[in-house]
Amino acid sequence: MNAAMQVLLAHRSYRDFTDQPVSDADLDAIIEAAQRAPSSIHAQVTSLIVVRDPAKRAKIAEIAGNQPWIAKAPVFICLVADFAKTNAAVEFAGEQQVIHESLEGFAVGAIDAGLVLMTLTTAARAMGLGAVMIGGIRNDPQAMIDLLGLPPMTFPFIGCCIGHFASEPPLKPRLPVKTFRHDEQWHGVPDKATIEAYNAELMEYWKSIGRPDGLPWTANTAKRYKQVYFPKTKLVATKQGFTVDK
Amino acid sequence: MNAAMQVLLAHRSYRDFTDQPVSDADLDAIIEAAQRAPSSIHAQVTSLIVVRDPAKRAKIAEIAGNQPWIAKAPVFICLVADFAKTNAAVEFAGEQQVIHESLEGFAVGAIDAGLVLMTLTTAARAMGLGAVMIGGIRNDPQAMIDLLGLPPMTFPFIGCCIGHFASEPPLKPRLPVKTFRHDEQWHGVPDKATIEAYNAELMEYWKSIGRPDGLPWTANTAKRYKQVYFPKTKLVATKQGFTVDK
Repeated sequence: MNAAMQVLLAHRSYRDFTDQPVSDADLDAIIEAAQRAPSSIHAQVTSLIVVRDPAKRAKIAEIAGNQPWIAKAPVFICLVADFAKTNAAVEFAGEQQVIHESLEGFAVGAIDAGLVLMTLTTAARAMGLGAVMIGGIRNDPQAMIDLLGLPPMTFPFIGCCIGHFASEPPLKPRLPVKTFRHDEQWHGVPDKATIEAYNAELMEYWKSIGRPDGLPWTANTAKRYKQVYFPKTKLVATKQGFTVDK
Repeated sequence: MNAAMQVLLAHRSYRDFTDQPVSDADLDAIIEAAQRAPSSIHAQVTSLIVVRDPAKRAKIAEIAGNQPWIAKAPVFICLVADFAKTNAAVEFAGEQQVIHESLEGFAVGAIDAGLVLMTLTTAARAMGLGAVMIGGIRNDPQAMIDLLGLPPMTFPFIGCCIGHFASEPPLKPRLPVKTFRHDEQWHGVPDKATIEAYNAELMEYWKSIGRPDGLPWTANTAKRYKQVYFPKTKLVATKQGFTVDK
């Protein structure tokens, strides 16, 4: 098994960071790798906002629904769908940008943020650091926009903390591969027995890491997905120009 | 520099595939790695449809706007936002799923597809194979839905070809890192001199790989983004239940 596969197969979310700073050289290398991620039509729509200022990180920890690791980890990076950047290209060519008003454009911004973020966190791990992705910034996207000075035609989709870690959690169990992989045709949703077995396995995991508040897959998913878990996304995206009416 | 960083820094899109099949063992390992990608609220919303049937790949090549490498590469994988799977979890818990009707849910489906896809293609490369991402399936999402038997509450966001490669393209130049990385605050769009220099660099790249039809960054971005490049995304997503009105 080669080293790159080992990094991928050992993926976990690190939340227990030390005070040790991330060196400029490490951060530069991680960002260089992240920029190699491919992008839709090579537009390179994603921009990173690197936040090291402790006061700002403390504020982001609060925005994200009180996640203390954001204040603790020395580096927070926000992944922004930056259609202001592509707009500069379109205007340079003497045309007018329309894509950011479409659901297609919104999808591209989100997918590309995912591509860059996965590269970013894989690179961090490859450099011996730990990372955790933070979707919680969508708890209050407007606060992120204000804090980072984001202009119209941009949206802060997701972020991550990067730092040296003090401890490593065990691998979190996934649903059986048969519920993830379909061959040739989609073959249906997980059956009752599969769901029950996975719920039990996940509860064992929570117990093993001392989290008595951990929920089974079904109850956790229901708790979040019976509602719009981050209800401000639509409102703020629309205000930013992502009207998604096309 | 470690092996994992080398894989990330050497990212390129492979389109020149040989006829050599991808072994089951290699494909299983790549999919195992991809399933380790993190997911929003650990819902594991992404599903993969692995397509090896040549007739089906030929059809996907056509759907994606005639991309012959899809018919040539032995494996095509479609990344599906599978809210039918999470719906099974929510129903198991006696609740009703709402998230897929929201723009937040659509964003999560797209971001998570990106996270899995980046892991998938990095794993393929780590195993000595080449991959290229295919956004072109959104040219006709309904045809993909019909071909793969996708039910309501699912959307085929993106795909990729995986195979052994016959040749390796040079690294494609990126915009200068200062246009990608912002520190503490978003610092503006690329200036005219930066854009002109990058346009020139990209034209050199096109020339070096014998592609006289290659466009500068600005003209290419304008060509696609002055319109809704894949105009059926909104219509088909809505029909699938992604009304994004919440």
